[in-house]
Amino acid sequence: MNIGIIGLGTVSRGFLEILEQKTDWISQKFGSDIKVVAVKDIARGNIYNPKGININELLNKLNNGEKISDTSLTDGDSLSEIDSIDLIVEATYSDYTTGDPAYTFIKDALTNGKHVVTTNKGPVALHYTELNKLANDNKVMLRYEGTVLSGTPTFSLIEECLAGDDIVSIRGILNGTSNYILSKMSQGDSFENALGVAQEKGYAEADPTNDVKGYDARGKVAILSHKVFGVDLGLDNIPTVGIDTISKEELDTAKKEGKNIRLVGSLTKTGKTIEARVQPEALDTEDALSNIGGVTNAIEVSTAYLGKLMVTGPGAGKLETGYSVFSDVLSIIKNS
Amino acid sequence: MNIGIIGLGTVSRGFLEILEQKTDWISQKFGSDIKVVAVKDIARGNIYNPKGININELLNKLNNGEKISDTSLTDGDSLSEIDSIDLIVEATYSDYTTGDPAYTFIKDALTNGKHVVTTNKGPVALHYTELNKLANDNKVMLRYEGTVLSGTPTFSLIEECLAGDDIVSIRGILNGTSNYILSKMSQGDSFENALGVAQEKGYAEADPTNDVKGYDARGKVAILSHKVFGVDLGLDNIPTVGIDTISKEELDTAKKEGKNIRLVGSLTKTGKTIEARVQPEALDTEDALSNIGGVTNAIEVSTAYLGKLMVTGPGAGKLETGYSVFSDVLSIIKNS
Repeated sequence: MNIGIIGLGTVSRGFLEILEQKTDWISQKFGSDIKVVAVKDIARGNIYNPKGININELLNKLNNGEKISDTSLTDGDSLSEIDSIDLIVEATYSDYTTGDPAYTFIKDALTNGKHVVTTNKGPVALHYTELNKLANDNKVMLRYEGTVLSGTPTFSLIEECLAGDDIVSIRGILNGTSNYILSKMSQGDSFENALGVAQEKGYAEADPTNDVKGYDARGKVAILSHKVFGVDLGLDNIPTVGIDTISKEELDTAKKEGKNIRLVGSLTKTGKTIEARVQPEALDTEDALSNIGGVTNAIEVSTAYLGKLMVTGPGAGKLETGYSVFSDVLSIIKNS
Repeated sequence: MNIGIIGLGTVSRGFLEILEQKTDWISQKFGSDIKVVAVKDIARGNIYNPKGININELLNKLNNGEKISDTSLTDGDSLSEIDSIDLIVEATYSDYTTGDPAYTFIKDALTNGKHVVTTNKGPVALHYTELNKLANDNKVMLRYEGTVLSGTPTFSLIEECLAGDDIVSIRGILNGTSNYILSKMSQGDSFENALGVAQEKGYAEADPTNDVKGYDARGKVAILSHKVFGVDLGLDNIPTVGIDTISKEELDTAKKEGKNIRLVGSLTKTGKTIEARVQPEALDTEDALSNIGGVTNAIEVSTAYLGKLMVTGPGAGKLETGYSVFSDVLSIIKNS
């Protein structure tokens, strides 16, 4: 299994660290010889080595902020056109309007018969149906565990552990940044103050729009709808209210009633219809989602046989999201 | 895949209900024709039909309290000796001293080259190493998802979704009955009163020893140690304190400090050593296990890459435990 990586940010570094530690384990367990043969990053440079890139050396250069380019690959070369690559890890960036540049990278890779693992929500939320068809037509796999709850098992849990059970509804705390801000606000902080601290700690970006307006949670709800229920809702059809609308009065009332306000993304199946939304909700402390504090994410699944089931775990982080890529790669090895 | 079932109590009925609904789905998804060809129950009777037993008819008889015996199979016949059976669902009963009669049924089935799915904790906690070796020697699978957290994915989560991650420690609320009693006690009920209500509701048995003395949780800790860490601790080497020792003062102090008392089963790996115990602990409300109320079970896993991860779900129930058998059967179909 020869891997190419596009985008060498935090996620790819986390993935490479894990892969470096687990290469021997993979070969023992699956009899699969796994190599990273090409990497490409708009800022850091490009390498192609059909014999396998030395991951330790690469990580050292990346961690020291050094350029990595050698003459083996130019900015103009596409990993999708390198025959020896079997699987492309796509970890660049995207938006919720076009999904690009990630969308184009994924499309090219699938069209050229490469398996794809991505952590980019934009292309999956916006173009799931097309990308899924492309993967099927080209007999390759497209996996994106990291798009929801980073490495915390979500899709693998549903596919592997809940196979044969019927999912009726899903509710989740899908955005760690807004949950962190809400936790601070319930302790008395103002929205502006809590956001400031979240930005200082690196939880929120300089432009926090996607987090505080609920767009990030909405993207994840769209992906869940596609993947779990097979329904393409369209982002614009998911009613979305962010946490920037919450007033001091609402917080005080919730506190007085012993409730916690949480930004909840939810999907409910009725017949063939999916009703989905993202909105702040004042939750009773009996409600399991109410007790999820800080940047933690959680997803509660209601099923026909098991009733309510919840998974709680990290929603971001280098190794955490790197592990999502690693587990998707393992899954592709197992199934190919 | 021809199935034989020993023991036709609640768990088997739950399994049969799910199987009846999902037979077509299995054949579409896995191309596997699944039939129940023999059932055997010490009180209800025995049937053998190599063409497949009509599950609906069987369930009706079982639900109406009717005897099911026909002349096809006698009490003396062993399902393990029927050649056409590929997989035996063992759902009789056992204790934590010998693990019998479940232990003997499982041993016979494995020795005769049958896959086994069991929900009995006794034989797995006491004889894991021997049974596992028997399964390997006979090239069959032994699965027991239902022994811990009933159908809530535990072993399948660890095997399928956390593959390649390294588990450092496990803590859990592994016994719903004692957690229910503790929840009632924290609301002011006495131990005796809370136990009485638990017995009325069917959560606790007439003899509540295994639950309130922590023996049930200890058995699950032993199974986790075997399965996750490959270490045979021996039940007697797991320090165990039950909830029957908790004084009113301890409850009052915990309440005053804003804590909840929970019966926690825990395992920590240090080098090659596993330190394991079962004991009531006063947990801060920041501790995710603290907020698990009622009969719900939960397991918190700490791993090298993902940090802390928690799964919360049912720990008992007809369909819930029936689903654990169903998911083990699916797993065997997928891997055989």
